[in-house]
Amino acid sequence: MKLVIGDKFNSSWSMRPWVLLKHFGIPFEETLIRLSHPDTKSKILEVSPSGKVPCLVTDAGEAVWESLAIVETIAEMHPGHAMWPRDAAARARARSISAEMHAGFADLRQHMPMEITMHAPGAGATPGALANIARIEAIWAECLAKSGGPFLFGEFGIADAMFAPVVMRFNSYEPELSETSRAYAKRITELPAVAAWIDGAREEAR
Amino acid sequence: MKLVIGDKFNSSWSMRPWVLLKHFGIPFEETLIRLSHPDTKSKILEVSPSGKVPCLVTDAGEAVWESLAIVETIAEMHPGHAMWPRDAAARARARSISAEMHAGFADLRQHMPMEITMHAPGAGATPGALANIARIEAIWAECLAKSGGPFLFGEFGIADAMFAPVVMRFNSYEPELSETSRAYAKRITELPAVAAWIDGAREEAR
Ligand SMILES: N[C@@H](CCC(=O)N[C@@H](CS)C(=O)NCC(=O)O)C(=O)O
Ligand SMILES: N[C@@H](CCC(=O)N[C@@H](CS)C(=O)NCC(=O)O)C(=O)O
Repeated sequence: MKLVIGDKFNSSWSMRPWVLLKHFGIPFEETLIRLSHPDTKSKILEVSPSGKVPCLVTDAGEAVWESLAIVETIAEMHPGHAMWPRDAAARARARSISAEMHAGFADLRQHMPMEITMHAPGAGATPGALANIARIEAIWAECLAKSGGPFLFGEFGIADAMFAPVVMRFNSYEPELSETSRAYAKRITELPAVAAWIDGAREEAR
Repeated sequence: MKLVIGDKFNSSWSMRPWVLLKHFGIPFEETLIRLSHPDTKSKILEVSPSGKVPCLVTDAGEAVWESLAIVETIAEMHPGHAMWPRDAAARARARSISAEMHAGFADLRQHMPMEITMHAPGAGATPGALANIARIEAIWAECLAKSGGPFLFGEFGIADAMFAPVVMRFNSYEPELSETSRAYAKRITELPAVAAWIDGAREEAR
């Protein structure tokens, strides 16, 4: 299995399936395409029909693209791991917040782009981005209260992976956050799979 | 089970799970919230934590929001219906194009909004919208060639439901389309579940 990703310092979509695979110890080959080169698009299109990364290439040579479709497919391939919550109601909620992340939070994504090595407290705090952050904090607070933590649905899973790049943004731009959000963000940042991605991003910057 | 939707003439996201449930003959109660009233937001927030429709409320009273999460949840509840393709590789592809629709095609959505009763050939044909349309035609052509049709993966399923509002846009704005796309769009328009949604939209306009 091969995962084609963009630069670790700023390919937020690539981070999601990568962290998931690493966390669950699923072996995969990694191909990194630099995103701001003249031949970026043509290189991506050689593997990913949408022209975007991430793209998973299965052992049978089939391309699976879009982060959410990739994580659904990985979860199906590994039913022994509880990547989605085992409880049906919790699973439906995990899918709701993951799909909300997948399609939403445009202001946050635009004004507080993921750049892992960047430290710019206060930057990008537009009203739209702050409204997105308020909604994210409400999601986290409700999930953590219902599950008891330490992750959104108890153990680390797909929903946490979907929100991991948001944590990277919070680490860079340091918006005001509740105690609950800060503690959750810290747990995500310190998760070995996330720390490994961050290390990769720092190495790119050297 | 209750599905909370917006106006049928223009709530493109609501159309997806509604058409899926109707097509597979799954009984559900329907609650329609008019989208441009002063109390729209507060009414939606009573049921849907994201403040958006569609929202499915299960018999246990659990809210499931985001069209893609709703259709995944419906598929899981009804394993006897092949809402996703039974073949794993086809299913991964169906999820990829559905997630691409869920998060993408922003230009098409902005410049050719779904307004079922509107007929405005040529309107909204910005370069961005046309590029989106070209990508959609490529997706349809590839899926139909691989499956043999008549729908994207053979029988009608989630992937077709995800693209049904695009067909409504094509019917309104009539961009130039390949023969293959036109024939597929006609099949979607004539599907009884889609025709029933269109009828509902026309009745709203009266
Ligand atoms: N909705 C897509 C978004 C993918 C995306 O936007 N990827 C960016 C990098 S993070 C990309 O490939 N950009 C390169 C390009 O558009 O040329 C997903 O979830 O995978
Ligand atoms: N990504 C969401 C989009 C939902 C959405 O944007 N819904 C619109 C109607 S089509 C809405 O609720 N608008 C009302 C509002 O924002 O107040 C989904 O897939 O369900």
